[in-house]
Amino acid sequence: MNLYVINFKGQTTVGELINPEKGSPGAAEDMEAAESFIQQAMEIILQEAVKKATNVKEKVCEWRSPEQLKELLDLELKDTGESESKILQCCRDAIRYSVKTGHPRFFNQLFAGMEPHSMVASFIIEAIKTSQYTYEMAPVFTLIEDVLLKTMMKLIGWEEGGDGLFNPGGSMSNMYAVNLARYRYCPDFKEIGIYASPRLVMLTSQEGHYSIAKAAALLGFGTKNVYVVPSDNRGKMIPSALEEKIQLAKSEGAVPFFVNATAGTTVLGAFDPIDEIANICEKHNLWLHVDACWGGGALVSKKHKHLLKGIQRVNSVAWNLHKMLMHAYYLILFKLFFFSFYKCLLQRCHCAGASYLFQQDKFYDVSYDTGDKSVQCSRKPDAFKFWLVWKAVGTRELEYRVDRALALARYLAQEIKKREGFRLVIEPEFANVCFWYIPPSLRNLPESPELWKKLHTVAPVVKERMMKKGSMMIGYQKHGDKPNFFRMVVISPQVSKQDLDFVLDEIHRLGKDL
Amino acid sequence: MNLYVINFKGQTTVGELINPEKGSPGAAEDMEAAESFIQQAMEIILQEAVKKATNVKEKVCEWRSPEQLKELLDLELKDTGESESKILQCCRDAIRYSVKTGHPRFFNQLFAGMEPHSMVASFIIEAIKTSQYTYEMAPVFTLIEDVLLKTMMKLIGWEEGGDGLFNPGGSMSNMYAVNLARYRYCPDFKEIGIYASPRLVMLTSQEGHYSIAKAAALLGFGTKNVYVVPSDNRGKMIPSALEEKIQLAKSEGAVPFFVNATAGTTVLGAFDPIDEIANICEKHNLWLHVDACWGGGALVSKKHKHLLKGIQRVNSVAWNLHKMLMHAYYLILFKLFFFSFYKCLLQRCHCAGASYLFQQDKFYDVSYDTGDKSVQCSRKPDAFKFWLVWKAVGTRELEYRVDRALALARYLAQEIKKREGFRLVIEPEFANVCFWYIPPSLRNLPESPELWKKLHTVAPVVKERMMKKGSMMIGYQKHGDKPNFFRMVVISPQVSKQDLDFVLDEIHRLGKDL
Repeated sequence: MNLYVINFKGQTTVGELINPEKGSPGAAEDMEAAESFIQQAMEIILQEAVKKATNVKEKVCEWRSPEQLKELLDLELKDTGESESKILQCCRDAIRYSVKTGHPRFFNQLFAGMEPHSMVASFIIEAIKTSQYTYEMAPVFTLIEDVLLKTMMKLIGWEEGGDGLFNPGGSMSNMYAVNLARYRYCPDFKEIGIYASPRLVMLTSQEGHYSIAKAAALLGFGTKNVYVVPSDNRGKMIPSALEEKIQLAKSEGAVPFFVNATAGTTVLGAFDPIDEIANICEKHNLWLHVDACWGGGALVSKKHKHLLKGIQRVNSVAWNLHKMLMHAYYLILFKLFFFSFYKCLLQRCHCAGASYLFQQDKFYDVSYDTGDKSVQCSRKPDAFKFWLVWKAVGTRELEYRVDRALALARYLAQEIKKREGFRLVIEPEFANVCFWYIPPSLRNLPESPELWKKLHTVAPVVKERMMKKGSMMIGYQKHGDKPNFFRMVVISPQVSKQDLDFVLDEIHRLGKDL
Repeated sequence: MNLYVINFKGQTTVGELINPEKGSPGAAEDMEAAESFIQQAMEIILQEAVKKATNVKEKVCEWRSPEQLKELLDLELKDTGESESKILQCCRDAIRYSVKTGHPRFFNQLFAGMEPHSMVASFIIEAIKTSQYTYEMAPVFTLIEDVLLKTMMKLIGWEEGGDGLFNPGGSMSNMYAVNLARYRYCPDFKEIGIYASPRLVMLTSQEGHYSIAKAAALLGFGTKNVYVVPSDNRGKMIPSALEEKIQLAKSEGAVPFFVNATAGTTVLGAFDPIDEIANICEKHNLWLHVDACWGGGALVSKKHKHLLKGIQRVNSVAWNLHKMLMHAYYLILFKLFFFSFYKCLLQRCHCAGASYLFQQDKFYDVSYDTGDKSVQCSRKPDAFKFWLVWKAVGTRELEYRVDRALALARYLAQEIKKREGFRLVIEPEFANVCFWYIPPSLRNLPESPELWKKLHTVAPVVKERMMKKGSMMIGYQKHGDKPNFFRMVVISPQVSKQDLDFVLDEIHRLGKDL
């Protein structure tokens, strides 16, 4: 065991310290060593994970295969600790071989960019390391979550208010919505289970996120009881088809109880027609949830909020703050969940009333203890991150970021239409720009299954080459009967028109020989 | 909108930037402003959230009621952003009025202390902000999670290996275990739901964590189908009572399928007898899960691992790394989940196969893409935190920390037995020390319901006073028929014998007039 480790535990031997009589004689030295380590690490983070990671002249990733990376890194955990310099090198390596999601050429996921306020807030949360079960444990963050929820409910248009919770992920938020809908349908299920229930059916569109199916499996409904509603060629749910599926379920003796509409689908960025869907749900008395994880950000934009027209009518909304609303949002695990229905539904649906945590004889108003609304026990105070960003930049800057991202997406779509060898899959409605790159060898072939089959192999190879070169990262996928195409997502305010031009040029450079 | 904000978006007006022709002319200045802000904030974090927050001479909390705190903080979100100095003040305030969980006098929860390596790792994760769905997005962290899982499986004694996942919380990990057990019982439920199932019954002890009931409600079983098995006066599940409850369920025509044993109960710190429970589960072919969220840390200690004797026989283990194993562990949301049963059960039970994320035509071995094992979509690479701590200090230091914490808990229990006015609720087996403080006015009263009723009111008042004074934080609760008592939890290596003496002295100072 080396000096560094000994310093950290008080410059005494294990044998001596195990005797609690000794106390912590080296506490002051420990703290100095810890501080020095933290300071050095903070400098590495600033240089490598902030400055270098957002520099367009640097690589967006430094690809190594699993086998290569295992060789490069000393991952094994041992009996004795490593030196401070070795640990700092581990930190440098972890950053070096990780993907730079804040890089202006990173377009691989539905998050991107670097938001300094959000990053700082996340550091504070990690340093404070509390959990948001009770006001006692998280006074500041409890109030902040409340303010943020109320502000966002106003944006949704829920005049009567509502309730909500930051969850670790949009999938979890969608799952909460399904559970609340079930609770509304029959509160007794919480106690007796769904054994005696008629077959309950959930409805979502073919373009909806897979988390609805995961929720169906987890909550005991089964994936077969998710009825998939066809979407039109823009990727939007067809309301008449929803009506048909509801009738189908009823004719089978099943009970439809939950409809998921999507505001901003994952691949195409399509918005389901909420108003028309809400009419149908009202008629049949179904819970209407909107998965606005991706498209919710448009609510801050006067120009684009029409995409979610009717959202004030729905029962619940899942909204991922790290995605569109922040463009450059830093944190990827928290999402927001609202409902406008019963004031205490979240609490009633999920409470277990643990007496060691939610004592009712506290000296403050225990309605501020929000932990029992959650299916989790520990819960991170993630609201603080988004609150600090919003506080720092203001609503108008958030609006500006949404407007700018969508303007850039339009620009990219125009460029794709202009350039030879590029073809849009669909005219973009949001920030997703889906397109094929057709290498010269395929350009003069007639449209045929043969051509599609060949085209299907292009994107994976271009992706492999961009990763190995480290020049950019863009996602691709097949979709329905469509062969593999690229999905560009324009989010970060740090992305320029030049970056988008680069993407198209680079795809051609990497794929022109295919 | 002030200069600071304008700096951050490139020193141009909204109108100009919305035109994507403009690109990001001020990117360099933006980055400088961002860097300067991050550096100032890092200094605040180091001074306020690290140094001051761990200084025993400072308060552990600065209590304000919700109403006072709302007055003190300007929480409202506005159209325009705030100045840099105002935002830095928001950061200082957030730290100031938050509970200092790294403080040596913080004993309120099952986590405590300050771990510099863990904190630094969490900063790196936040700065890199990736998500662990695919190897492509998290190459380093994917390999690290794998190494960590394998190392911990060795500690459990699963020679044949297994699988696992870091989840956002022990409650989630327990929920995964229930779902896997259901999948093993009948894989078809994933598709068809549990409507056609016989009534499925889960068993846990009266001392088990409430997340088992939450899982039963969420997964569609219903809380009434959690059969509660009595515990003995040490808080341990009584195996013969488990056998009886299983027989009871069967006699009712129900199907018991899942048993939760607890290694380290939340309040008393009791360990269920795993070997005896495993015998019963084997006999009835039931899935045996161990909720070792709290007590799992004992596995690294040669001296204390006997507490979990038999754990190598169980099907799944939930283990919270931030708790005992790290004492001073920094992160409160990730937990570990294992199972030794079927190699691909996690994947098969939870997969949805989203084609936009888990493409099968990638250029690397896609078995490294672990995201579809999870019910989440985005998932934080939390394994890195614990890996870095372990790497830095080594297994022997982890063992030392466990041994030292338990030695200190024994010391505290001895002191309580020696002192007038203090009374142990139960002889501690682990790091929980549960006790009553009996103020002088109650010391000569005969044991009676009347005395217990009065005693019940003591802990809440002492707690209120310690919070308002900010001298320390300790949890209390009623438990079964026992009136409110304190639950001290000794975890952090930064805690000394002197801190424990202080706790007892201070409780007496705060409560002697009651």
